[in-house]
Amino acid sequence: MGTEKIRIGIYGFGNLGKGVMEAIKRNPDMELAAIFTRRDPDVLASQIKDKVTVIHVDNIELWVNKIDVMICCGGSATDLPVQTPMLAKWFNVIDSFDTHAKIFEHLEKVGTAARAGGNIAIISLGWDPGMFSLHRMMAAAILPGGKDYTFWGKGVSQGHSDAIRRIKGVKDARQYTIPVEEAVERVRKGENPALTTREKHTRECFVVAEEGADKARIEKEIVTMPNYFEDYETTVNFVSEEELLRDHAKLPHGGNVLYCGETGEGGEGHKHVIEYGLKLDSNPEFTGSVIVAYARAAYRMNKKGEIGAKTIFDVAPSLLSAEPYEEMLKKL
Amino acid sequence: MGTEKIRIGIYGFGNLGKGVMEAIKRNPDMELAAIFTRRDPDVLASQIKDKVTVIHVDNIELWVNKIDVMICCGGSATDLPVQTPMLAKWFNVIDSFDTHAKIFEHLEKVGTAARAGGNIAIISLGWDPGMFSLHRMMAAAILPGGKDYTFWGKGVSQGHSDAIRRIKGVKDARQYTIPVEEAVERVRKGENPALTTREKHTRECFVVAEEGADKARIEKEIVTMPNYFEDYETTVNFVSEEELLRDHAKLPHGGNVLYCGETGEGGEGHKHVIEYGLKLDSNPEFTGSVIVAYARAAYRMNKKGEIGAKTIFDVAPSLLSAEPYEEMLKKL
Repeated sequence: MGTEKIRIGIYGFGNLGKGVMEAIKRNPDMELAAIFTRRDPDVLASQIKDKVTVIHVDNIELWVNKIDVMICCGGSATDLPVQTPMLAKWFNVIDSFDTHAKIFEHLEKVGTAARAGGNIAIISLGWDPGMFSLHRMMAAAILPGGKDYTFWGKGVSQGHSDAIRRIKGVKDARQYTIPVEEAVERVRKGENPALTTREKHTRECFVVAEEGADKARIEKEIVTMPNYFEDYETTVNFVSEEELLRDHAKLPHGGNVLYCGETGEGGEGHKHVIEYGLKLDSNPEFTGSVIVAYARAAYRMNKKGEIGAKTIFDVAPSLLSAEPYEEMLKKL
Repeated sequence: MGTEKIRIGIYGFGNLGKGVMEAIKRNPDMELAAIFTRRDPDVLASQIKDKVTVIHVDNIELWVNKIDVMICCGGSATDLPVQTPMLAKWFNVIDSFDTHAKIFEHLEKVGTAARAGGNIAIISLGWDPGMFSLHRMMAAAILPGGKDYTFWGKGVSQGHSDAIRRIKGVKDARQYTIPVEEAVERVRKGENPALTTREKHTRECFVVAEEGADKARIEKEIVTMPNYFEDYETTVNFVSEEELLRDHAKLPHGGNVLYCGETGEGGEGHKHVIEYGLKLDSNPEFTGSVIVAYARAAYRMNKKGEIGAKTIFDVAPSLLSAEPYEEMLKKL
C-alpha cells in the first residue's frame, strides 16, 4: 500500500458537490484536489469553510494528470449528457445520471469518450439509481421471475420542490414524498399486490406564497400538475418563510426496495422477501458517500487496465473498500 | 449467447443439496448434471422425485470435464474443510463454509488447490455468510466508521435444534431464534445502542421427549447449555411428535443487517441507517438460490481465465444474472 492519496476532482458545486466534499473527508485514502466551477472561483472559494482549490472550468485541461477521478456533480437534464462524455476523455469519471430513458445512450457516449482517453467511467451512481438498482438486479438474479417494488421517502424531492417553485405567486416550497405504509406492509407480507401510483405514495407540500398571491389557484395548480402531482394524493400547506427555513431546511430522504420471489415446486413453492432500506438524514451527503466509494473502485479498475463506461453492476464490491482484504473477511 | 447449459454438480444431498436442485430448475441456462453421494446411489435416486443422475463419490474423477461448477453441500465442521479443497483440484467449486474463525485458513487451502487445477472457487456463500456479509462490507465502505448490527430470525436454527437432540431423553426438537423487536427498533432509529447477546435474541424450543424421560432435567440441560443457550432468554415447550411434524416441519429463517453511519461535520453530522432484510419461507432453498447465482458467476469468471479462491466480495454483480446487460440496465 502506497501513501499516495487518490486525488478527487469535483465538477460542479451544488448540493451533491458539497456532499462529495464531506464524504472525501471521511476517507483518509483520498484528497480533494480541486473543485471546478462555472462561477467566479475566488468568490466560491471564499464561501467554502474548508481550504480548497477552486478552478474555473475553462482551465480544466491544465488539470489532466493531476486528478485521479473526476466526479461530475451536474444535473441529469442538461449538464451530464454533455459534461460526462467531455470529462471522460481526460479523466476517470463518476456521475449520477438518472434520466432512465436515456441511460443506454449515455453509457454508449461516455464509453466512446472514456475508451478514447484510456479512462474508466462509472455512470448513474448514488442510491436510486445506484444502490437500489443493485438490489433490484441482485434479487432478480437470486430469485428469477419475482417482482420488485420501490418505495421512496419519507423525504424531500428536489425535482418536485422545484416544480412548485415555478408556479406564479410561489416564493419557495418544499415537497415530501411519503410511502403509503399499508402498501409497504402488504408487500412485506409477500402478498405480491398490484399497486397503482396513488396507492404507493402520497405527496405533502409546504409552500411560501408571495404577498397577495391567490392561494386557492396555487393549490389547484399543484395538485393538478401532470406527471408531478395529478396521480397522487397531494396535501398543500401554506407556511411562512421563517417556518419553511426553520422546519424544512434539511434534505432527508430514503426508501425501500422490496423483492418477492419463490423457490421450490410451483404452486406449493416457498415465498421469500428481500428488502433493502435506507433512512437518510442528508440525501446529498449519502449520495456523495456512495459516489466516493465508487470513485475508489474506478481508480483501482483503471490502474488494472480497465477502460470504458461501466455501471454499478460491473464493480466487484471489494474494490469499494479502503480496508485490507483480511479485515473484510472478518465481515464474512 | 450459446445454447450450452452450465452443468452443475451437487456434492452431498442433504437439505442444502435439495435447495440447490430446486434452484437449478428455476434457471433455464443451467442443468443438474449429477448428484454425488456417499450413500447407495440407486437408493438415493429412487428417493428423488425428479429424474436425476446419482453417482457414488468414489467415481467422481470420471466426471472431471463433465461438470462446469461443483457445489459442495456438506457441513462446515468436518465435510467442507476436506471436500472443497479436494474438489477444487478438479472442478470450479462453490461452498457455504461458515466457521468464522477458520475462513482465512479455508480460503488459503482452497486457493492452493484451485490454482493448481486452473479452477475458480467461491467460498462461504449463502445469506450469512453471504448476502449479509456483502451488506456489512458495502455499508462500511460507503459510510466508514459506522457500526453494524445483525439480527437473525424468526427462524429455525439447525445447529441449535441438533444440540437439543443430542440431550439424553430427547426424541426430536426444533429451535427458533427470535430477534428482540425493541432492540431492532432502537437500531433503526439510529440510537446506536450497545446490546448484549441477551438483549438481541431470544430462543424458543419445541421438544419431543422420549416416554418416561425427565422433562425438568431436559429443560434445565437446554437452558444452561454453554454457547448455545445459557446467554439467552430461552423458552422450552414440550410437544408431541405429531405436533412437531405438523407445526414445525418447515425451515423458515431470515434476519436483518443494519448499519448506522454518519456523514458531514462531526458532532452536527447527519445519521444514516442502511438495512438489508430477508424473510425466507425455506432457508435451504433460498441459500441454494444464492449459491446457484454465484455458480453462474464462477463459471463466467473461470471462462475469462480467473482462477483461485474468491469470496462474495470479489464478484461483480452483473456476473450473477442470466439476463442480457441491456435488460439489467432497465433496473438502473
